[in-house]
Amino acid sequence: MTEPTTAGNRLRGYVSHGGQLRSGELSPRTYLEETLTRITELDGAVGAFVVVNREGARRAADESAKRWAAGKPLSPIDGMPVAIKDIIETADMPTGQGSPLWEGTEGKRDSASVHALREAGAVVLGKTTTTEFASKHPWHETTNPHDPTRTPGGSSSGTAAAVGAGMVPAGLGTQVMGSILRPASFCGAVGFKPSVGAINRSGSHDHFSQSCQGSIGATLADTWAVLRAIADRAGGDPGFAGLAGEVDFTRRTKPVKLAVLETAGWSATTEGARRAFATLKQRLQDHGIEVVGRADDDRIETVEHAVADAPALTTAILAWEGRWPLNTYADLDASKLSLDARDRLKVAEAMTQEEFGELLTRRAAARATYENAATHYDAMITLGACGAAPLGLDSTGNVAMNVTASLLGCPAVTIPALSDEDLPLGLQLLGRTNHDAALFDVATWLTGEALDRPDLVG
Amino acid sequence: MTEPTTAGNRLRGYVSHGGQLRSGELSPRTYLEETLTRITELDGAVGAFVVVNREGARRAADESAKRWAAGKPLSPIDGMPVAIKDIIETADMPTGQGSPLWEGTEGKRDSASVHALREAGAVVLGKTTTTEFASKHPWHETTNPHDPTRTPGGSSSGTAAAVGAGMVPAGLGTQVMGSILRPASFCGAVGFKPSVGAINRSGSHDHFSQSCQGSIGATLADTWAVLRAIADRAGGDPGFAGLAGEVDFTRRTKPVKLAVLETAGWSATTEGARRAFATLKQRLQDHGIEVVGRADDDRIETVEHAVADAPALTTAILAWEGRWPLNTYADLDASKLSLDARDRLKVAEAMTQEEFGELLTRRAAARATYENAATHYDAMITLGACGAAPLGLDSTGNVAMNVTASLLGCPAVTIPALSDEDLPLGLQLLGRTNHDAALFDVATWLTGEALDRPDLVG
Repeated sequence: MTEPTTAGNRLRGYVSHGGQLRSGELSPRTYLEETLTRITELDGAVGAFVVVNREGARRAADESAKRWAAGKPLSPIDGMPVAIKDIIETADMPTGQGSPLWEGTEGKRDSASVHALREAGAVVLGKTTTTEFASKHPWHETTNPHDPTRTPGGSSSGTAAAVGAGMVPAGLGTQVMGSILRPASFCGAVGFKPSVGAINRSGSHDHFSQSCQGSIGATLADTWAVLRAIADRAGGDPGFAGLAGEVDFTRRTKPVKLAVLETAGWSATTEGARRAFATLKQRLQDHGIEVVGRADDDRIETVEHAVADAPALTTAILAWEGRWPLNTYADLDASKLSLDARDRLKVAEAMTQEEFGELLTRRAAARATYENAATHYDAMITLGACGAAPLGLDSTGNVAMNVTASLLGCPAVTIPALSDEDLPLGLQLLGRTNHDAALFDVATWLTGEALDRPDLVG
Repeated sequence: MTEPTTAGNRLRGYVSHGGQLRSGELSPRTYLEETLTRITELDGAVGAFVVVNREGARRAADESAKRWAAGKPLSPIDGMPVAIKDIIETADMPTGQGSPLWEGTEGKRDSASVHALREAGAVVLGKTTTTEFASKHPWHETTNPHDPTRTPGGSSSGTAAAVGAGMVPAGLGTQVMGSILRPASFCGAVGFKPSVGAINRSGSHDHFSQSCQGSIGATLADTWAVLRAIADRAGGDPGFAGLAGEVDFTRRTKPVKLAVLETAGWSATTEGARRAFATLKQRLQDHGIEVVGRADDDRIETVEHAVADAPALTTAILAWEGRWPLNTYADLDASKLSLDARDRLKVAEAMTQEEFGELLTRRAAARATYENAATHYDAMITLGACGAAPLGLDSTGNVAMNVTASLLGCPAVTIPALSDEDLPLGLQLLGRTNHDAALFDVATWLTGEALDRPDLVG
């Protein structure tokens, strides 16, 4: 099937129904019951959720309904059911980190982001599957909602699958390599990896220097609103002011000039994905947008060169930064770590502090090169993944198209407007670091006008 | 009493006894038993420890003895008994965060720093008291080892008291305002707050942007060796290469030019403290060192102006950054939070993300001003505290002399070479950010030569 499975338009967007919520035409409880029904119907096959807190969600939705009825919603996402990736702590549900070592671990507190979501009135509905420690190994058996024989991608597997299946309008993910953009592309959802530091990660098991918390949603409006509501209440990581911009996102600006960034993943893209991208490029040009590539601008070639080894450089940075906690987890019970995790620990233990320092210097240089080029464009565009979700559940797919934004620390959004093998494929836009709102602005115009997908806007 | 209570010279330094450990003249187990005896004798009155793992420590010391006997110590601190501030996670001892809400909370993992200490062969001896969440309120009743009617300072109260009493040669602390430098000054210990990011804080309940992990020790050599051993194995915070420099610290460089930095705390200093500082200044000049003040160099006055509101600016930054986890802790049981913590939460909830962004801009400007001036000096000098430890246990004292280094993110070391009211008082040296080794180099020369305290060198 080419279109994501959905429960109708209402589930495809929440914040755009503010008028109906305000008038009482739609109640948060009704909306929630639809999502719960969808979960009952679909999640046996998809397996997106580790746990669903149905009664807690119903109580929260009823409270939200009272606020809307009183004309006093706490935010645009008041009453929105939200799924939480299972490496982010929740006081009312265990946090298993996708690991047999931590499965079912009860905590006593919410992460900064989950607490902010509750303050904004959101309905924290359930915890969604992740690969082990949000890294590579999938202990879970989550399937792609568009084809059960294919991976949903990872590491934010469950959030992407739940959104792609139309079970929830949005949820939280995290990305340090490609863990938001890739599963969003594979599952037919919008994925937003904001600038590094833009969302407070405190209380999430997510400590890498280029990692960040982001959102996956059915529409651009929902995807933005979830993160903006968090930043307003919890800010960015300590030392970062956090995601800024409109709370009710209404801006739509037509881009003048876009750069095509082929990145290290281009050689791994499928023929269908390249064809889809070429068609899109033509379409943008037909709209009068200048689309520039490396042949036209040396600065783009310089960026492509600077990120050519992004997967290897990121893997090396993560190895050193992931030495802890893997070392103390190995003390606990190494048999409950994947072979992949044990291998990463060995690599880390063979590294030196000086080697790590050199990796940071290389990353800083790549970031400077990118920012220098990015100021000349409204956005850079590339594919959201190398192609459609690959067959099989043992691997979550190739990160090559997704790691660039994480290495660079810049914001990136993927929009499920392309297709490959009749399955969803994302168009990825990369913006300037700390200019996330400007990126969303352009992405919203493109999606609604050039791609003619107002349903994905919200 | 003017001299710290000690169990003799051996307890006053560990790494400087490498020769004796290597020859078998001194065994880590013997050294440990002396520390355990000291704890038995003194800690009933001082109350520095929350828990001591005597049997675990004995096993670790015996393993260390085998390594020294085989000529294969893992590091200069192999066998050194180390105390751990109780906001830093340990797999074999609970982590209580100085809070009735978390008292006795069992974890399953070591922090990055504690794991690194074990990898370096150190004997992780016990957990030491801290004020609530390493902030202001002392739920503990730890006393100053030099006068039981006085505060040991905080928030690293127990580590400073344990070292000052000669119970352990060194331990870990953390500082976001003055939590290492002040208690070290009050208790007669060396305190080292490294550059921000220099020591990996992962697995410590310590998430503020200007916070860092540091050490308190009986000698400069021990204080340095503990942190350098950690950085070698766990690096800095994610994204930071971490504390660099010699592992066996042997450098001693005579400074040419020192700047006197009076900071916001100067007006709160005692007469005795000022007198001690004036005498010291004369002594440095007698050694041919140029000592420059604001009257001689406008850059110093500019720095003093930039840090004049360091306590208020830091308090405001910490309020916003501390909104989480206080909000989720208040959900859990607000009655187990101090009034001070509840007040901080109220302040945070009244702040906006934009206001926080402005605070960060002001901090960045102060840092740039300082680095610009600091390049012209071998170090800046000031007092380690406003005076001797004040009477009473309800407050841990005035942070005014200590907060500057935290706001600026620069390294600072306090050396217990002065006195006030016949009680210990530190000389504080501030260095250039990420030039921690150069600061230790100068501090070591000054301590051994100008201050004539080779016992504090190691």
